[in-house]
Amino acid sequence: MSTEQEHPKKAFGWAARDSSGVLSPFNFSRREMGEKDVTFKVAYCGICHSDLHLIKNELESTEWGASTYPLVPGHEIVGVVTEVGSKVEKFKVGDKVGVGCMVGSCHSCDNCANNLENYCPRWIPTFGGKYHDGTTTYGGYSDIMVADEHFVVNIPDNLPLDGAAPLLCAGITTYSPLRYFGLDKPGMHVGVAGLGGLGHVAVKFAKAMGVKVTVISTSPGKEEEAIKHLHADSFLVSRDEDQMQAAMGTMDGIIDTVSANHPLLPYIDLLKSHGKLVMVGAPEKRPELPVFPLLMGRKIVAGSCVGGMKETQEMIDFAAKHNVTADIEVIPIDYVNTAMERLAKTDVRYRFVIDIGNTLKPSS
Amino acid sequence: MSTEQEHPKKAFGWAARDSSGVLSPFNFSRREMGEKDVTFKVAYCGICHSDLHLIKNELESTEWGASTYPLVPGHEIVGVVTEVGSKVEKFKVGDKVGVGCMVGSCHSCDNCANNLENYCPRWIPTFGGKYHDGTTTYGGYSDIMVADEHFVVNIPDNLPLDGAAPLLCAGITTYSPLRYFGLDKPGMHVGVAGLGGLGHVAVKFAKAMGVKVTVISTSPGKEEEAIKHLHADSFLVSRDEDQMQAAMGTMDGIIDTVSANHPLLPYIDLLKSHGKLVMVGAPEKRPELPVFPLLMGRKIVAGSCVGGMKETQEMIDFAAKHNVTADIEVIPIDYVNTAMERLAKTDVRYRFVIDIGNTLKPSS
Repeated sequence: MSTEQEHPKKAFGWAARDSSGVLSPFNFSRREMGEKDVTFKVAYCGICHSDLHLIKNELESTEWGASTYPLVPGHEIVGVVTEVGSKVEKFKVGDKVGVGCMVGSCHSCDNCANNLENYCPRWIPTFGGKYHDGTTTYGGYSDIMVADEHFVVNIPDNLPLDGAAPLLCAGITTYSPLRYFGLDKPGMHVGVAGLGGLGHVAVKFAKAMGVKVTVISTSPGKEEEAIKHLHADSFLVSRDEDQMQAAMGTMDGIIDTVSANHPLLPYIDLLKSHGKLVMVGAPEKRPELPVFPLLMGRKIVAGSCVGGMKETQEMIDFAAKHNVTADIEVIPIDYVNTAMERLAKTDVRYRFVIDIGNTLKPSS
Repeated sequence: MSTEQEHPKKAFGWAARDSSGVLSPFNFSRREMGEKDVTFKVAYCGICHSDLHLIKNELESTEWGASTYPLVPGHEIVGVVTEVGSKVEKFKVGDKVGVGCMVGSCHSCDNCANNLENYCPRWIPTFGGKYHDGTTTYGGYSDIMVADEHFVVNIPDNLPLDGAAPLLCAGITTYSPLRYFGLDKPGMHVGVAGLGGLGHVAVKFAKAMGVKVTVISTSPGKEEEAIKHLHADSFLVSRDEDQMQAAMGTMDGIIDTVSANHPLLPYIDLLKSHGKLVMVGAPEKRPELPVFPLLMGRKIVAGSCVGGMKETQEMIDFAAKHNVTADIEVIPIDYVNTAMERLAKTDVRYRFVIDIGNTLKPSS
């Protein structure tokens, strides 16, 4: 059966058809709304770096696996509720809502029981995955979403929808490890390595938590931006050995958002004893682990991947309270292929967000 | 000035003179006892694997640095107090005491303030280091020790001195991470990788804490020993892919005592989400870090190095309460070079302990 007729609800979006990654208009369908489901009209969808990887099938050789086509990307999705199932408790028509990286999980494992659906071995990604019934999941580069209310968050009125969209992936990806690894205590000193989509939000959250923040970047040109615009407390050029040497042993933790291959030792050396290097991106090549410095300082290297639904709502509420949104460049849908090219060159400050509501027009 | 005349107290031990690592009788001296110092007659001293590395200058290329000669090894030292300084509060003549891996620290850094002298950047190792006054530290392969009472622990009467000696390094090295990383909760499942001097004590401590313990070893022959003698709950042959596959995702943490080069992924795969791989030995070659599995399970790889003095006393008291001692082969001092050869082949079950009190005779 065609994807257009698979389900009763007609839907329209842009999809990649093969590993060229070129996106083009795509008619498909979404499931009939279940009693716990929410349907919403998509207003904005952020473009995450993983969208780019997945449309080009660049994660095939990793543990993530091969992409399947047609692929409708997008997991930083916000919109306005148009319909709710009979047993939906959290939402009503007209509510502003968001969906992030996942739309399902097993609800029976330890992680699900602990509000950590993101670590459920059977979690269902928002696009390119399979629902429990075997049908494909399609992401937010599309006109409507149908999702189980468990995987939908409320967006408070004072948050602009466009700037809030990237919080659903970039936001929770950085907020969650700041909390889990205890790097959220006022007076602590936290490094943020890499100043891109994830890094700039990490700086904002850490600052809102009262933490002293140092941005670590390969680009000296980002210093003014980091300090003046994002209000980081200091800036380190990671290639400047004198600067790095002077900062050794000063940080309680580092959120490492760099997905390019990079050595870990310079970051580990920046940590105080008992400091924590938390990686939120996976470089293509496995880095060497310098064990001796870990031993001598009881340091840790950790990974973290988005957050559970309860924490995602908490993050959004925290963002609303502290006026944290992503810095974005809003684009029309027909600019999306150009945006992908620019994103590949990190030519964006700091996140593209597609204005779905105003620019996505059905093809027929 | 000769080491024999440097200080007023005559001392005698066995020292390595060069990187051949051959130990032979050595006359030296120890400092006049200060008002906070304790002098004790050494009864037993364990042979740690790092003694072997250091007598042969095998850590020269690591961050540890080059060994200096003559070198009197030994940092698992127990004995009986013969003299105490005027301001010593914790000990009196006749007390059974021990000294582990360190004999000094700065007493002014954050780590010292938090009873983590072992992570003080100016900690003084028990042998091969320099006291604050610049004189060399000599270890426990010797007749007497003089040490600041802060770095001396009490050995309760019910602990046999010979079996307690290895606790001062092997014991605290494994006890401390079980506590710090929260792997000490009854019902948890902890892996112990490597069944040697450190590993066998790790099993005993973890069992005494009520934890389910699985020994992970390259040697199928150790299974009976692990289960029957050390009361481990299960045993995994790390080279058996079926066994390893079946145990994936079952452990809350692993204490990795393996100092031979080894890949980390098989151990990381054994961890549940949020599990902790704690390395307590540093392989010569930096292992590759598989970042993706860390991310997808919020797992950590950490290092840990002995423990602070407060925790070392706590560990000894816990060992006394739960009858935890090392399994040892007691040897006379003139067997020490043979013991080193056997240790290099891991031909010992599980720790050599030198009977200093009965076998070390002054040469003249």
